[in-house]
Amino acid sequence: MRILVLNPNTSAAMTAEIAAAARAAARPDVEIVCRSPYFGAEAIDSAAESYLSAVGVMDVVARLMRAGAFDFDAVVLAGFGEHGRDALAEMLSVPVFDIAECAAHVAHLIGRRFSVITTLARSIPPIQDRLLLAGLNAHCASVRACGLGTAEVDADPASAVQAIVEEAARAISEDGADVICLGCAGMAGVTAAISAKLGVPAVDGVAAAVALAQAVVGLGLSTSKAGVYAPGPDNPRSHWPLSQAIDSSRERSSEAIDSSRERSSEAMGL
Amino acid sequence: MRILVLNPNTSAAMTAEIAAAARAAARPDVEIVCRSPYFGAEAIDSAAESYLSAVGVMDVVARLMRAGAFDFDAVVLAGFGEHGRDALAEMLSVPVFDIAECAAHVAHLIGRRFSVITTLARSIPPIQDRLLLAGLNAHCASVRACGLGTAEVDADPASAVQAIVEEAARAISEDGADVICLGCAGMAGVTAAISAKLGVPAVDGVAAAVALAQAVVGLGLSTSKAGVYAPGPDNPRSHWPLSQAIDSSRERSSEAIDSSRERSSEAMGL
Amino acid sequence: MRILVLNPNTSAAMTAEIAAAARAAARPDVEIVCRSPYFGAEAIDSAAESYLSAVGVMDVVARLMRAGAFDFDAVVLAGFGEHGRDALAEMLSVPVFDIAECAAHVAHLIGRRFSVITTLARSIPPIQDRLLLAGLNAHCASVRACGLGTAEVDADPASAVQAIVEEAARAISEDGADVICLGCAGMAGVTAAISAKLGVPAVDGVAAAVALAQAVVGLGLSTSKAGVYAPGPDNPRSHWPLSQAIDSSRERSSEAIDSSRERSSEAMGL
Amino acid sequence: MRILVLNPNTSAAMTAEIAAAARAAARPDVEIVCRSPYFGAEAIDSAAESYLSAVGVMDVVARLMRAGAFDFDAVVLAGFGEHGRDALAEMLSVPVFDIAECAAHVAHLIGRRFSVITTLARSIPPIQDRLLLAGLNAHCASVRACGLGTAEVDADPASAVQAIVEEAARAISEDGADVICLGCAGMAGVTAAISAKLGVPAVDGVAAAVALAQAVVGLGLSTSKAGVYAPGPDNPRSHWPLSQAIDSSRERSSEAIDSSRERSSEAMGL
Amino acid sequence: MRILVLNPNTSAAMTAEIAAAARAAARPDVEIVCRSPYFGAEAIDSAAESYLSAVGVMDVVARLMRAGAFDFDAVVLAGFGEHGRDALAEMLSVPVFDIAECAAHVAHLIGRRFSVITTLARSIPPIQDRLLLAGLNAHCASVRACGLGTAEVDADPASAVQAIVEEAARAISEDGADVICLGCAGMAGVTAAISAKLGVPAVDGVAAAVALAQAVVGLGLSTSKAGVYAPGPDNPRSHWPLSQAIDSSRERSSEAIDSSRERSSEAMGL
Amino acid sequence: MRILVLNPNTSAAMTAEIAAAARAAARPDVEIVCRSPYFGAEAIDSAAESYLSAVGVMDVVARLMRAGAFDFDAVVLAGFGEHGRDALAEMLSVPVFDIAECAAHVAHLIGRRFSVITTLARSIPPIQDRLLLAGLNAHCASVRACGLGTAEVDADPASAVQAIVEEAARAISEDGADVICLGCAGMAGVTAAISAKLGVPAVDGVAAAVALAQAVVGLGLSTSKAGVYAPGPDNPRSHWPLSQAIDSSRERSSEAIDSSRERSSEAMGL
Repeated sequence: MRILVLNPNTSAAMTAEIAAAARAAARPDVEIVCRSPYFGAEAIDSAAESYLSAVGVMDVVARLMRAGAFDFDAVVLAGFGEHGRDALAEMLSVPVFDIAECAAHVAHLIGRRFSVITTLARSIPPIQDRLLLAGLNAHCASVRACGLGTAEVDADPASAVQAIVEEAARAISEDGADVICLGCAGMAGVTAAISAKLGVPAVDGVAAAVALAQAVVGLGLSTSKAGVYAPGPDNPRSHWPLSQAIDSSRERSSEAIDSSRERSSEAMGL
Repeated sequence: MRILVLNPNTSAAMTAEIAAAARAAARPDVEIVCRSPYFGAEAIDSAAESYLSAVGVMDVVARLMRAGAFDFDAVVLAGFGEHGRDALAEMLSVPVFDIAECAAHVAHLIGRRFSVITTLARSIPPIQDRLLLAGLNAHCASVRACGLGTAEVDADPASAVQAIVEEAARAISEDGADVICLGCAGMAGVTAAISAKLGVPAVDGVAAAVALAQAVVGLGLSTSKAGVYAPGPDNPRSHWPLSQAIDSSRERSSEAIDSSRERSSEAMGL
Repeated sequence: MRILVLNPNTSAAMTAEIAAAARAAARPDVEIVCRSPYFGAEAIDSAAESYLSAVGVMDVVARLMRAGAFDFDAVVLAGFGEHGRDALAEMLSVPVFDIAECAAHVAHLIGRRFSVITTLARSIPPIQDRLLLAGLNAHCASVRACGLGTAEVDADPASAVQAIVEEAARAISEDGADVICLGCAGMAGVTAAISAKLGVPAVDGVAAAVALAQAVVGLGLSTSKAGVYAPGPDNPRSHWPLSQAIDSSRERSSEAIDSSRERSSEAMGL
Repeated sequence: MRILVLNPNTSAAMTAEIAAAARAAARPDVEIVCRSPYFGAEAIDSAAESYLSAVGVMDVVARLMRAGAFDFDAVVLAGFGEHGRDALAEMLSVPVFDIAECAAHVAHLIGRRFSVITTLARSIPPIQDRLLLAGLNAHCASVRACGLGTAEVDADPASAVQAIVEEAARAISEDGADVICLGCAGMAGVTAAISAKLGVPAVDGVAAAVALAQAVVGLGLSTSKAGVYAPGPDNPRSHWPLSQAIDSSRERSSEAIDSSRERSSEAMGL
Repeated sequence: MRILVLNPNTSAAMTAEIAAAARAAARPDVEIVCRSPYFGAEAIDSAAESYLSAVGVMDVVARLMRAGAFDFDAVVLAGFGEHGRDALAEMLSVPVFDIAECAAHVAHLIGRRFSVITTLARSIPPIQDRLLLAGLNAHCASVRACGLGTAEVDADPASAVQAIVEEAARAISEDGADVICLGCAGMAGVTAAISAKLGVPAVDGVAAAVALAQAVVGLGLSTSKAGVYAPGPDNPRSHWPLSQAIDSSRERSSEAIDSSRERSSEAMGL
Repeated sequence: MRILVLNPNTSAAMTAEIAAAARAAARPDVEIVCRSPYFGAEAIDSAAESYLSAVGVMDVVARLMRAGAFDFDAVVLAGFGEHGRDALAEMLSVPVFDIAECAAHVAHLIGRRFSVITTLARSIPPIQDRLLLAGLNAHCASVRACGLGTAEVDADPASAVQAIVEEAARAISEDGADVICLGCAGMAGVTAAISAKLGVPAVDGVAAAVALAQAVVGLGLSTSKAGVYAPGPDNPRSHWPLSQAIDSSRERSSEAIDSSRERSSEAMGL
């Protein structure tokens, strides 16, 4: 089984972390391939960046498909609360797993009420929206923020762990949560701290998504094409895939291909 | 990994079917053990029978625990819409998987709106209640009944398949479902017919529960004991486990142990 | 009019308290008969005990029916948040009154938002579930726990009253409740303290259920048999009623019938 | 016990019918007094008439209070879906029973899903609003109209009964109702036809309200004054009670007091 | 364009304030006419007064219509949480704008979650009811009260502004509001203080209603008469319009017309 | 006042139609400028195209801002059910008006229940999602599709009008709608047919958004920056704005600038 894990931001460090988390959760016989978009933001902290990331992962998939290089059994979308899941489900015949939804599903299976701990307060509403649209908000006790941005989490992981554990403790005592979901793909590794200090199960979205991907693929099931995830009509599109439009015009230029583009192409696995 | 699958009714034929469905969904390295209660009903078509079945599976687990014979990594409760999941979650440290909830979780992962097709109309409300309490009803398009009781399904499987496929077709066209969940543990095998004739994914609860059990156990997670599933206080109970009360008084009697009891004890794996 | 009040636990003291509360609320021409199960727990503080109690009261009713001794106009189920109401409604042609539901109905009639004060925090979720399934949660301001278990309430009633009044005060000031429901059958007597100290009406579930039973029977109405409460199909059941299975096997034994059994049979009115 | 039943319209015939229905439901020791407003509409088929009726019943009560003639233990507001209950609850220390709410409460106690059958389609939304605000809509299967206005129902009762029974049949088969509530105060008498022909319990709001009034008064409970039903501040009002303003200016006129006024005063019991 | 603004209380001072607020929000080419009821309360702090005000504004409109003096393009109902909007929508062919609803609509357009700050705590439930019935409560973060009655607000406007700003600050920090709606028609002028001190937009209902009235009239749209707002049947009414009944009987009296009546008639623009 | 209207697809014909509809609704003193994205799809019939369109309109705005050419008082996003509103609200200090939300707001103001008629069935779920997230779904009777794609509507407008009117008729009779919203920006002109044939108000989203933009700007209000619409942190982005990345690399190429690019730059007003 091969699973494509899509990091929706362009940070190479984050892509590596997510790949590691996915591999740690995968069965030995499952291959994890992790990719990030050609364009977009290094971290996703706004609706604008979230939409950009959705188009970024669509672009990755479209280019792989055009190149005949899409040979995966499932896709994991590793943005917690980001857009894009429905577009990928529409484009692909293999099932797609959003890490926020998957964390919530696993939380349902092992507890009665879960809380999500994310980075900044401004990420709370999009996560609430994601759970509401997915029909998974009835047992959500709260979505809380530890107050540290992605960059700060990266810069001082120990303090971040402490801030997250403290917020999780409030979710348990004030909101009645009995399971904690880590509300950001880069928080992998905090789960052990939460379980050890607070005595509740903690769910990492990337691991949850890989586990559920294995489960659903193992059942021989995939996205229903009888409803909203059917492929759309063949409307004319301009400059699509966008990365190719940027790329190919560059190729036509007489300039030397810059090193960043090399890295980008490599990141896309082309 | 060892999974205990509990058929909540006392039908040996149904227990065998469920065991087969569970084994078909399990990974090769996973052992499936299937048990049914010592007392209760051969089929569960009422609230009274559902409560009886809940106590029946509690009894099986309690007796295994008392005998030091509970060595499973997860439990699957194979009653679609029956009671008992929360009691088992409370009693056990390993995770418990209700087949109705698991079917709904898988349906969420592969579609936008699911319908459940059950046997008799009188089973619709308990399934709706189960989904409501589990926080999984927002994307449920409908719960429908094919009109055949468990006995009729057993007696004429071909007609049953047709009736279920027809009801599923109505769920798709009238209620907007794009995934079908089979709302009874004995319906295994119908999924292929639905997918073939209607072009939508069909989810069998037993298979879904086994797959999710493997996924959750694989993640190293189990039921949270920080909330409602913490073990209860040690209130005095009389005649518990009930099967033992019935059994041991029988043993004290001078009558020959009847063959039905032998079968029962065997069914409980004791 | 004769009302059968079922205490779902096996505590004789609690049965007596409930009987007294029911008699205090009943009209002079109404006879109250109070019974408790043959088996089960002395107090109900878990889902497992709640299911056991549901089967326990079903067993009482089944045995009375088999003995031709069921001659009541209504049944009150005196467990606050316990299971079993729907099974009794299914089994019986006379109406069944759950004390949690009845307390909520009366609270609606005399206020805008009610809170329930129960014993332990672990009893909050089942009460919330009961109200949700009964369609009576929209005006529920909160379900709160005074933190004392049933045994502690019994051991030190004066402290229990104070703890309950304090929690009720918080429900009023923090949650906006204007009516308090006592969330446990053994709390009868606290209503006066709450009304006196906090100036809000307090509803005891047993009294509410008896009053509503009188009202509904007076209207000549009973449980609808056109829906989910229709009698179930006649599925074969083993060892049912359970108390009889335990009992009769004991009778067949050569042992002297122990005194506890005598008390049990007496408690069941057989 | 004395219960004041308020017919919110000005029809003497309807007032008599409601009084009869109330008396038929009351215990022998309970006295029913029925009154209608001094001003307003003969039938209530619009929001404008509903508000007018609310002020009309407030006016009746205010005048009785001013005259020291309010000596009732409970008040029944006999408009199905009309306004006014909250105002009366605010004005009075005795409990107030709205017939739509009371019908819904009784329906909850004897079934799982109820439908309301009212007169004209334009009365459906106000009844839905009343149930929504009262927190009693979750188990409402539907509100349906038989298509006959109040006048037509009065003119041809036999056809009206048939139309109502037919609509109730649809509520049962199409909406899944197992209890029918009659959605208008003048429909008393139809309950027997529905039960006989359709085999489901049918609830008349007036009877339900009288029965619940007896129950709540019997419990020694009344409207909470700790919340929204506390008496309002003493804001200056002009021309209040309105009937007195109309009346007293008339008295000051030199005209002979007309017979309609005599009837009105008599209707108010002054 | 001519807009009739209806102050539902009888306070001349409040009517003047509302008229000023409406004029400040109106385009130069829009004429604002402000009226208050002939009867009712000087301030509306209870359900009883709210119903009285609904009939009061109905009475104003009915009398203008009878006098052939209703020549407006839209009506604004300037009671925040009061009754009457649906009755006016029914009576009139021009559109009707409730200030609570309009404030909520504008709040939706400029933020994600709004809070309403009203006067007394007892006004909170009717405002919640109004938003619930209007389908506008999902994004309402809270309805809060500053604790000052209408009279106190009038007596000491500076303190009132401070109290309101403080409560708005709590709505922002504790409830997550990003827009504040002023929950009473007399609070105009506070919006600037809130925006200046708290940095969030503040919406005055009267201004919002005038702006939306201009927008809807500009679109050539008006109240749908295909549903619940269709004119009701022509049921006989007694003493209607009430002001005329009071008035005309007075006229028939030999007494001198008192000065209060003169003021009232003037206020009604007749 | 200047309003920027953003057509999210790249069809020049649709852009012209939307501009005309916006101008028809605008006051004479309001200038309408209509723009479409540099890249994306000619029609939006899938989630993928919707995300692409969201990034497309973000790109238009970003480029205008960078060029110092953003001098508008409000922005209208003319995609019915498309993504992007929240991103624009975040990027801009002037208010942003989504046509689906604005149609729903106007529908609330003039009726009790509205239905949306869109093009293809696959557009129903995204519109339902948009209304759910906006908190505007409680009064939505239904979202229905006429079954014609955007291209078919363009090709045979007369048949399209008929199909839409027929679907609207079903929404009225079967779903109880009393207002119809046209669920696609290109349907302008159908409103007159619906009102004429069905007697209900019909709301065009573009007109509604222009009217509400005028209203909100007239009130001096704009998007709250105290919540989720605050500008995001300054995360590094690559290739942004995307159109510039495509464009500038093209400029560096030696190829002749093709005519399509000329049209695109013109469409963006640069």
